[in-house]
Amino acid sequence: MYSELTQDIQVEFEQAFGAQFVTTTAVREHHAQDESAYDKTLPDAVIFARNTEDVIKAVKLCSAYNIPIVPFGAGTSIEGHILPIHGGITLDLSEMNKVLSVDDQDFTVTVQPGVLRHQLNEEIRHTGLYFPIDPGANASIGGMVSTRASGTTAVRYGTMRENVLSLKVVTADGELIRTSSRAAKSSAGYDLTRLFIGSEGTLGIIVEITLKVYPVPEEIVAAICAFPTLEDAVNCTVMIRQSGTQIGRVEFLDSNAIRAVNGYSHLGLKEVPTLFFEFHGSASGIQEQIELIKELAKECGGSDFEWASKTEERNRLWTARHNAYFASLQLRPNSRSITTDVCVPISSLAQCVSETAADLAGLPFPWTMLGHVGDGNFHVLMMIDPHNESEREQAEAFNQRLVRRAIAMDGTCTGEHGIGIHKMEFLKEELGEPVIDMMRRIKHAFDPKNILNPGKVFSWNK
Amino acid sequence: MYSELTQDIQVEFEQAFGAQFVTTTAVREHHAQDESAYDKTLPDAVIFARNTEDVIKAVKLCSAYNIPIVPFGAGTSIEGHILPIHGGITLDLSEMNKVLSVDDQDFTVTVQPGVLRHQLNEEIRHTGLYFPIDPGANASIGGMVSTRASGTTAVRYGTMRENVLSLKVVTADGELIRTSSRAAKSSAGYDLTRLFIGSEGTLGIIVEITLKVYPVPEEIVAAICAFPTLEDAVNCTVMIRQSGTQIGRVEFLDSNAIRAVNGYSHLGLKEVPTLFFEFHGSASGIQEQIELIKELAKECGGSDFEWASKTEERNRLWTARHNAYFASLQLRPNSRSITTDVCVPISSLAQCVSETAADLAGLPFPWTMLGHVGDGNFHVLMMIDPHNESEREQAEAFNQRLVRRAIAMDGTCTGEHGIGIHKMEFLKEELGEPVIDMMRRIKHAFDPKNILNPGKVFSWNK
Repeated sequence: MYSELTQDIQVEFEQAFGAQFVTTTAVREHHAQDESAYDKTLPDAVIFARNTEDVIKAVKLCSAYNIPIVPFGAGTSIEGHILPIHGGITLDLSEMNKVLSVDDQDFTVTVQPGVLRHQLNEEIRHTGLYFPIDPGANASIGGMVSTRASGTTAVRYGTMRENVLSLKVVTADGELIRTSSRAAKSSAGYDLTRLFIGSEGTLGIIVEITLKVYPVPEEIVAAICAFPTLEDAVNCTVMIRQSGTQIGRVEFLDSNAIRAVNGYSHLGLKEVPTLFFEFHGSASGIQEQIELIKELAKECGGSDFEWASKTEERNRLWTARHNAYFASLQLRPNSRSITTDVCVPISSLAQCVSETAADLAGLPFPWTMLGHVGDGNFHVLMMIDPHNESEREQAEAFNQRLVRRAIAMDGTCTGEHGIGIHKMEFLKEELGEPVIDMMRRIKHAFDPKNILNPGKVFSWNK
Repeated sequence: MYSELTQDIQVEFEQAFGAQFVTTTAVREHHAQDESAYDKTLPDAVIFARNTEDVIKAVKLCSAYNIPIVPFGAGTSIEGHILPIHGGITLDLSEMNKVLSVDDQDFTVTVQPGVLRHQLNEEIRHTGLYFPIDPGANASIGGMVSTRASGTTAVRYGTMRENVLSLKVVTADGELIRTSSRAAKSSAGYDLTRLFIGSEGTLGIIVEITLKVYPVPEEIVAAICAFPTLEDAVNCTVMIRQSGTQIGRVEFLDSNAIRAVNGYSHLGLKEVPTLFFEFHGSASGIQEQIELIKELAKECGGSDFEWASKTEERNRLWTARHNAYFASLQLRPNSRSITTDVCVPISSLAQCVSETAADLAGLPFPWTMLGHVGDGNFHVLMMIDPHNESEREQAEAFNQRLVRRAIAMDGTCTGEHGIGIHKMEFLKEELGEPVIDMMRRIKHAFDPKNILNPGKVFSWNK
């Protein structure tokens, strides 16, 4: 179906890209794996794009020779998104890492796709603005757009879906398009911006992103609260959501996760189900929220309510949450994590979490549970030995049960990680073949040769 | 290209729909015009759908005989969206007007497309929840989805884009699909929900909508403030936005618009540029906001700051704003309005408004200016004599200059009204032919016979 990267074709790429075209094993290996538990899959070559013209050139060459092209940002995805499973070229965008403009009157920034999340916030710090979306990993903005990422602050600021104003995209024909103006809202035709967000590199290659940014809150206060049971913690979150209060973050860690972060970050947190909060606003607004949440937590059996307004103290608490992924991996040296990502309507969350906890009992590997419970989204991290087929199978079987549980509750198999190659079957179960076929029609219309990150999200043929 | 509705075909429709299939002139006339200034265009027949099965049946028959089908809600659109310009069937959805479920724990409701905005809020009032999106007109929810509507509260709650969770849609093949689960967020494949939002009936017929709803704010306070000039009022809005405060509504009316509402609603407002505010939240939170806004207004020369917390007083103020459209029409009996809808980045708003006001001087018909300035969106209403070609031409020429001004400022020709038949050329100017062609590819892939509301948004052929 695809062409090999023959000697002749390689020469063309070398002439076009010089030292930016790399075929060494070391570099190919570096682009062979994301944070998922999949084995390495090496691309035939890597191109390091430095600008939009490079991207256009690369796409046009790949189109001319029918060679797959897989965009690559920071490699922090966890569903196998960037694995070049049909070979071909990996297009590394990490050198396209400039913040192109900061429009501080409009609260927008325009960046290249390789800009990293932390870098963006460093570079705009002097403006008093920040980009709040926080998926945990120091992902690239292009990658975050491509997976429709969200994370700990979605409960307040929404996901990438709500925070991208406009995109520049190189299409499969090598044409550069811009999906919309920089107006805050628009009814100008089909919402191509939203179509590219979450399309996982299968519809075009994003080369420029205009994002919303926000004034750094006047005050930020962090808090934690311990609960007797999983259900109590989740119920507290549901009550907070239902109060309508606009909390900055609300995160759940189960006792296993607390044990992991205690070990990793040298903390002495009580090893019980725990909620982490962050409040954003004016001093008096925050005080009002804290009083409300203290009361709700108490109703749900919460105790040891502790809060911190000083940056240092806040960071200490939240670093624990932020390191939970790596802390969990440390529970078992040399393990890799299979991570679930269901999201359910919040009215079903307590039941879903509770049934899931029961289902986890008896699995032969360490696991932790944590998540963005304010959105109904939570993760189970299963630390498997990647060389042990039985463990992998048990973890996948558990994930399948969990996904089916979530779908039965009118939830989704993925709240924020995306489909990649890992959840293609789940996507079918969730939405049904006719819906997949609508997506497929778009893919066929936009990328008739199927060169853009092929084999991801859904199959090319019915 | 399309079939006529021959006697034989009519018989088939009559057999399928009985009394729901209507060809009387009176009913066809009632579906021949929206709130735009276009002349009437009659459909060949109207089908009153009562349920999803009716919609499927109608689409399948239209597909079989190659007959255009135009969905119709409340007829409040203003760009000619629902004009059956290629003849065929108008599918009236106003009898599909049930609120199907209220999930008060999840803050979601599921409704049929013919449910009207006011009706929805009446029906869910007892739950303490409400649907805040307010485009002015008592539009149908299906229509609001189809035009990606927004209005006075978008500054706080976003647009239909941010407030629809999931859709059920009948495709051009007559297949019923559901675009997503009811989870608050999801990364499950392409964002078909957002693709249908704003597609103006050209990609499928929406038969069920799951919306976000919100707790009725603890307190609501309304306020108005008079300003010496247009620019002062707009600058005040920009400063409010930049303060990061989350105001419920902030609306601008120029002195002509105030004169119109004074006449229409028997008010005695000072006939100068005026901002209308609404604050949502706790009593103390609102007090904080009012203090801030008073201060900012003062800095911009604002005076006569007046506020009202009692429902009756609030309604009196806001009814003035809500009636501005009809009040403007009353400035000239038997006129129709050509209404502009640009939206620009807020940093350019003062300049755009100011240049636009200068451009309006000397036009031979009454006009008013008002809008959702917190989003950078404003409207000019030009009350033309619909039988006077010269007035129509002058109004359209003015609109063209305004759109070009907005596009030059990286804004859009339509913040919330949509394209319909009125702005197809502007859409091309704004986004360029390659972007239109991406939209066209989707249209061709979803509706290969071009039966769904044909001739809208962009042309079928390049």
